[in-house]
Amino acid sequence: MDNETSSAKKVKVKVPGTSANCGSGFDCLGLAATIYNEFEFTFLEEKRLDISATGEGTELIPTDEKNIVWQSARLLIERAGEGDKIKGAEIRMVNHVPMSRGLGSSAAAIVAGLVGANAVVENPFSRQDILKFATEIEGHPDNVAPAIFGGFTVSVAEKNQVHTFSFLPKIKLKLIVAVPDFPLSTKMARQVLPQSIPLQDAVFNISRASMLVAALIEGKEKFLSCAFDDAIHQPYRTKLVPGMQEVFAAAKKSGALGVALSGAGPCLIAFSAASKKIESDIASEMVQTFKRFNVQAGALILDLDTHGAVAEPV
Amino acid sequence: MDNETSSAKKVKVKVPGTSANCGSGFDCLGLAATIYNEFEFTFLEEKRLDISATGEGTELIPTDEKNIVWQSARLLIERAGEGDKIKGAEIRMVNHVPMSRGLGSSAAAIVAGLVGANAVVENPFSRQDILKFATEIEGHPDNVAPAIFGGFTVSVAEKNQVHTFSFLPKIKLKLIVAVPDFPLSTKMARQVLPQSIPLQDAVFNISRASMLVAALIEGKEKFLSCAFDDAIHQPYRTKLVPGMQEVFAAAKKSGALGVALSGAGPCLIAFSAASKKIESDIASEMVQTFKRFNVQAGALILDLDTHGAVAEPV
Repeated sequence: MDNETSSAKKVKVKVPGTSANCGSGFDCLGLAATIYNEFEFTFLEEKRLDISATGEGTELIPTDEKNIVWQSARLLIERAGEGDKIKGAEIRMVNHVPMSRGLGSSAAAIVAGLVGANAVVENPFSRQDILKFATEIEGHPDNVAPAIFGGFTVSVAEKNQVHTFSFLPKIKLKLIVAVPDFPLSTKMARQVLPQSIPLQDAVFNISRASMLVAALIEGKEKFLSCAFDDAIHQPYRTKLVPGMQEVFAAAKKSGALGVALSGAGPCLIAFSAASKKIESDIASEMVQTFKRFNVQAGALILDLDTHGAVAEPV
Repeated sequence: MDNETSSAKKVKVKVPGTSANCGSGFDCLGLAATIYNEFEFTFLEEKRLDISATGEGTELIPTDEKNIVWQSARLLIERAGEGDKIKGAEIRMVNHVPMSRGLGSSAAAIVAGLVGANAVVENPFSRQDILKFATEIEGHPDNVAPAIFGGFTVSVAEKNQVHTFSFLPKIKLKLIVAVPDFPLSTKMARQVLPQSIPLQDAVFNISRASMLVAALIEGKEKFLSCAFDDAIHQPYRTKLVPGMQEVFAAAKKSGALGVALSGAGPCLIAFSAASKKIESDIASEMVQTFKRFNVQAGALILDLDTHGAVAEPV
């Protein structure tokens, strides 16, 4: 960046939407998809905020100090010791990721603020640091990890540290997302979960999540058939998304390799082999099945994002 | 085999010892190690059994119809429709795998019988079929899967089917096994486990088992540090193996990448990078630490078996 001495420091950031859990990988697996929120930052010496958004959920986005993009940017700026030099920002957002639907719009906002601010102070922090800050803000790494690293991610949260391993599967997948027209709060979706679960249900998920990771990395499609299945969160959340099990069944009947609740929902995600070219059929079956349960839903057909959040100077 | 018409059909079988669970992968992950039980079968037309064993646990091995090697062989022979032609056997065993220690001696016996019988009836069954039969007999796939396939295995047990994916890690590992001088029954080790566990303990293992599989397949040593850790079975079994946590700590202090109870114990297994050449130090620390808890233990330093059970005509 050659505008170090200027009072206006500009940077553009693009962050992918994400889908956490992938069924069996509850609170651990995630993926980034080719749907993006775009941000243009102009960081300012003066204490002034000018935030505006177009696209998804515009009316829900605070444009003052409470804005999570700005809060995240400010956290990084302060950790970089640049709080005296950067006190305000103009932030323009173009949002494509649906809000409160289980596609990581909140994580995208947090990662955008961190990555944008990091770029403007000349990247003192690694992606691992960004992950740590983002997890601090979001409370868990499920969506921020794939938003930062791209691809599929496996995250382990230890007391003071998050480890994230990201990988690109050897099978080219299509991601089919059915997006219901109602939001679902993650808080409510957490409240329906039990404190304790049968040991055998834990084994159900441990074995399938391990199989999912192995089969994706090694590109063994036939081992995916059971690998997305879940026993520890989706059964309890079925009541929050009318038609969920039926939409799952419809997607599988149309050839999906696996299906899952996307994050805490209400989006449902199906996975198909790109080579089969059946993604449109699956999407249409999912939307039609939702309609039978009086749920209006749109469909997104996406690929895996392979880069994670990207910043570039303007 | 050219002795099809002869009344004596001979085959030799070599089956590796195995270690189930690998910490986080409870009831799902397993590995085969370079320690073997060897079997020489002479299948007979007449109804006669002559079974003898040398080596580990000789005095505990039934030499009549109750012998599990013979029972397994007979099951396969009957499934192959050859029950009328093969009614007896001479079986010679040389056992190196310690018995009732958590190294899969029972699985080795079952797999030996199946693989030996399959070879003698000209291999009508695939390894996948053998896995199904072995799981039927053993009750779970944890040890039979790696004994059949070799390497590391991820197994998912569905109602009527077991899926096993086997892989060789990109990191060359040394396996250090401390073998206490007392046996532990798997039944008792099961009884100390709770019926239900906290949801967050399940997430603990799901994330670590997924990370373990990812890090091994991709050869990323740094992601192994947390990956073997377990919250859902080892804590409850600590009381069955005096000094267990201390032996774990000693192995880690000596540079082990991870540690685990081998199967249902009492063997403890540590993993180190072969390149570090620290396996002898780790072994000696484990044995010494056991001694502080009045447990006499031997040590085995092994590699990963890469083939699984092998049959060859004599």
